[in-house]
Amino acid sequence: MASPVLDKLPFTIHNLPYGVITSKEDPAPRCAVAIGDHVIDLAQYANGGGLESLDKTYETTLAQVFSSNGLNDFAALPWEARRHVRAQLQSDLQEGKVPSACLLPLSEVKSHLPMRIGGYSDFYTSLEHCQNCSGEMSQAAIAKNWWYAPSVYNSRVSSIVPTPTDLHRPKNVYFSAGIDSEPAYGPCRMMDFELEMGYFVSKPVPFGEAMPIAEAKAHIFGFVMLNDWSARDHQLFEMRPLGPFHSKGFGTTISNWVVPLEALEPFSCPPQTKQDPAPFPHLTYPDTSEGALDIRLRIKLVRDGQESTLGTSNLKYLYWTPYQQLTHHAASGCGMETGDLIGTGTISGSGVDDKGQKTELGCLYEAIRTKTQVLPQSTSSEYQQGFLEDGDEIILEGWCEDGNGKQIFGFGECRSRIVPPK
Amino acid sequence: MASPVLDKLPFTIHNLPYGVITSKEDPAPRCAVAIGDHVIDLAQYANGGGLESLDKTYETTLAQVFSSNGLNDFAALPWEARRHVRAQLQSDLQEGKVPSACLLPLSEVKSHLPMRIGGYSDFYTSLEHCQNCSGEMSQAAIAKNWWYAPSVYNSRVSSIVPTPTDLHRPKNVYFSAGIDSEPAYGPCRMMDFELEMGYFVSKPVPFGEAMPIAEAKAHIFGFVMLNDWSARDHQLFEMRPLGPFHSKGFGTTISNWVVPLEALEPFSCPPQTKQDPAPFPHLTYPDTSEGALDIRLRIKLVRDGQESTLGTSNLKYLYWTPYQQLTHHAASGCGMETGDLIGTGTISGSGVDDKGQKTELGCLYEAIRTKTQVLPQSTSSEYQQGFLEDGDEIILEGWCEDGNGKQIFGFGECRSRIVPPK
Repeated sequence: MASPVLDKLPFTIHNLPYGVITSKEDPAPRCAVAIGDHVIDLAQYANGGGLESLDKTYETTLAQVFSSNGLNDFAALPWEARRHVRAQLQSDLQEGKVPSACLLPLSEVKSHLPMRIGGYSDFYTSLEHCQNCSGEMSQAAIAKNWWYAPSVYNSRVSSIVPTPTDLHRPKNVYFSAGIDSEPAYGPCRMMDFELEMGYFVSKPVPFGEAMPIAEAKAHIFGFVMLNDWSARDHQLFEMRPLGPFHSKGFGTTISNWVVPLEALEPFSCPPQTKQDPAPFPHLTYPDTSEGALDIRLRIKLVRDGQESTLGTSNLKYLYWTPYQQLTHHAASGCGMETGDLIGTGTISGSGVDDKGQKTELGCLYEAIRTKTQVLPQSTSSEYQQGFLEDGDEIILEGWCEDGNGKQIFGFGECRSRIVPPK
Repeated sequence: MASPVLDKLPFTIHNLPYGVITSKEDPAPRCAVAIGDHVIDLAQYANGGGLESLDKTYETTLAQVFSSNGLNDFAALPWEARRHVRAQLQSDLQEGKVPSACLLPLSEVKSHLPMRIGGYSDFYTSLEHCQNCSGEMSQAAIAKNWWYAPSVYNSRVSSIVPTPTDLHRPKNVYFSAGIDSEPAYGPCRMMDFELEMGYFVSKPVPFGEAMPIAEAKAHIFGFVMLNDWSARDHQLFEMRPLGPFHSKGFGTTISNWVVPLEALEPFSCPPQTKQDPAPFPHLTYPDTSEGALDIRLRIKLVRDGQESTLGTSNLKYLYWTPYQQLTHHAASGCGMETGDLIGTGTISGSGVDDKGQKTELGCLYEAIRTKTQVLPQSTSSEYQQGFLEDGDEIILEGWCEDGNGKQIFGFGECRSRIVPPK
């Protein structure tokens, strides 16, 4: 009988993230939960009666809910129901009650996008990121509006891809020698990543309605790592006045397993920065002891087979918290649907090493603007120095620690490679 | 036996637009085509064998394709197949061969959004609109990038609504007395419409691929009227640096019947403006005798029961044509899916009346910037003069004419009302 190791990182018993899998034996997509180096096929588990005691409360059976190519129907269940499922999974795992037939080795399944995504919006809410980027792309100073509401734009759903997906370096129009110089058309010469997290909407907000900030938590299903790939020269060209489009829209990579908010609640903490000016009442979170999440982050590069760390950060650094973001997003009544993905925006910090070198930069553009060396020196390149080369692979990692610096669980990798233009 | 009148405007035999309907007798959504004051229930029509001769060529039967809550499966068929369906409908109608059982009075059906929409992008490509808006919202002059590629942003899918849907005046943050003044939170005080058309993608463009401009036509299913409602004070607040979000995302109204490109082909014409600088090769349409579409447009306001015309325009005025727009949209490999909606951007012109007053302004913001009186004087108002009041209804109309000014068919109304904030 297969017996998953319950404390194997990143998918320990304290995590139990949800995903969508297929396997060689069964090519039909269905929902699963990762544990150690195994997954539990949740459709099979529910079909076998593993969750029968919960079914009566809800309209559809969980076996149906999990026999799906997305976690949407599950995420749409009341939070209480999802908490029940999690509690029963934890207890069955601890008591060795999960039938072998439901367990598959993680290495033998293929992961897919975890949800059917209807909307994808991306925020811009790290003060350090904005400060580091200040200049031509963000109109010199931080604009006044930034301080009064979390800045956000709609991004492209069709190019959100699971880990690992190769992305072709995109072609488009750019200024050949800086802002307002002669435009040219061709492959991106300033290819960048952005260290972000993403979260999925659970309970919808109906069209025309706003969402009180006190209820924000109940609308979040869980978190993933997110790489908001950025073609900086294409971005510099297109930003005025409508914001980013192609420069972000050619691809966004996420990690494949959604860590539910239940797993993250023990790591909630107060926001790290006192907001000044004070936010409007509708953006003021009622409980000042929480609102942020203490999630450690790391960026790794694989170049020519060599892995190096480009930086670290923490989700808790964000000036505008995820709850404030979600509340602002819903404020005008656009409606939010189960499965909508929200990007936190690039997450940078103010940390430095013992030589005074910045260590918490969320993207290469910040490194260049602040004259910080983070990339290994590249050999000859047809692209601009300081940005990614063809073949470079970026890995984003996130994890939660206890008070002694011991990792409790991780998010699994968000990983993609830039390959030559088509 | 019901016999639809084949030359009744706007849905004449030359139009045959597609939509999605329900009826009292049959609440299941299915596809239909409008003709005169009737609709043909296409699921019923195909089920009854009306299109049997076409079925063998395609994987699914047309009865299945039309028994759907969106036109997506139909739009995804090869263009040739859709041309066949249209030709047979025209011929059967002309010969009186459409069975009565398939015909329903237009007044007895309810129309819905015609497609399941995965992505919605909105362009900004009318030179006159940009010129009229120049100022604080668009950074004083028209930015250099505007001339080298069609400007576009991702907008919000969840708030696209069919005609007629009431929209609550949205609440959000704005500058209380002009750019960078003290921010406040509350209902929009500068509520505006934007006269646009929208078009739906038929054949998808795969993720990672670009689309040659010569093939653009084959990727367009058809056109609707589109009102890109705009909360100007919220927009003025949020534009820097990420572009419009809430100011557009609270609602977008479309007309309910998709006029297929086949119906519009006779009204193709050369673009009205020579592009200078010349577009990049990938944005150069190979046939200089076409690229634009001659579609006449009108904006009407209903206030206090009185209807007035606020302006007229024509789709052919656009500086960047729909084919150029779509090609640029696909250029970075974001992938485009059947059912994606593209907004043309506000369509303004340079026309004036005999007093020199501008008559082709696509929104109220342009009227205010150019000091043109288009709205009836309002009585007392809690909002800013020159913008829409609660209860105001905007109707957008489009139609095609023959060389003698005779209307051949129309698009049907795009109509919505602004109601008080919640």
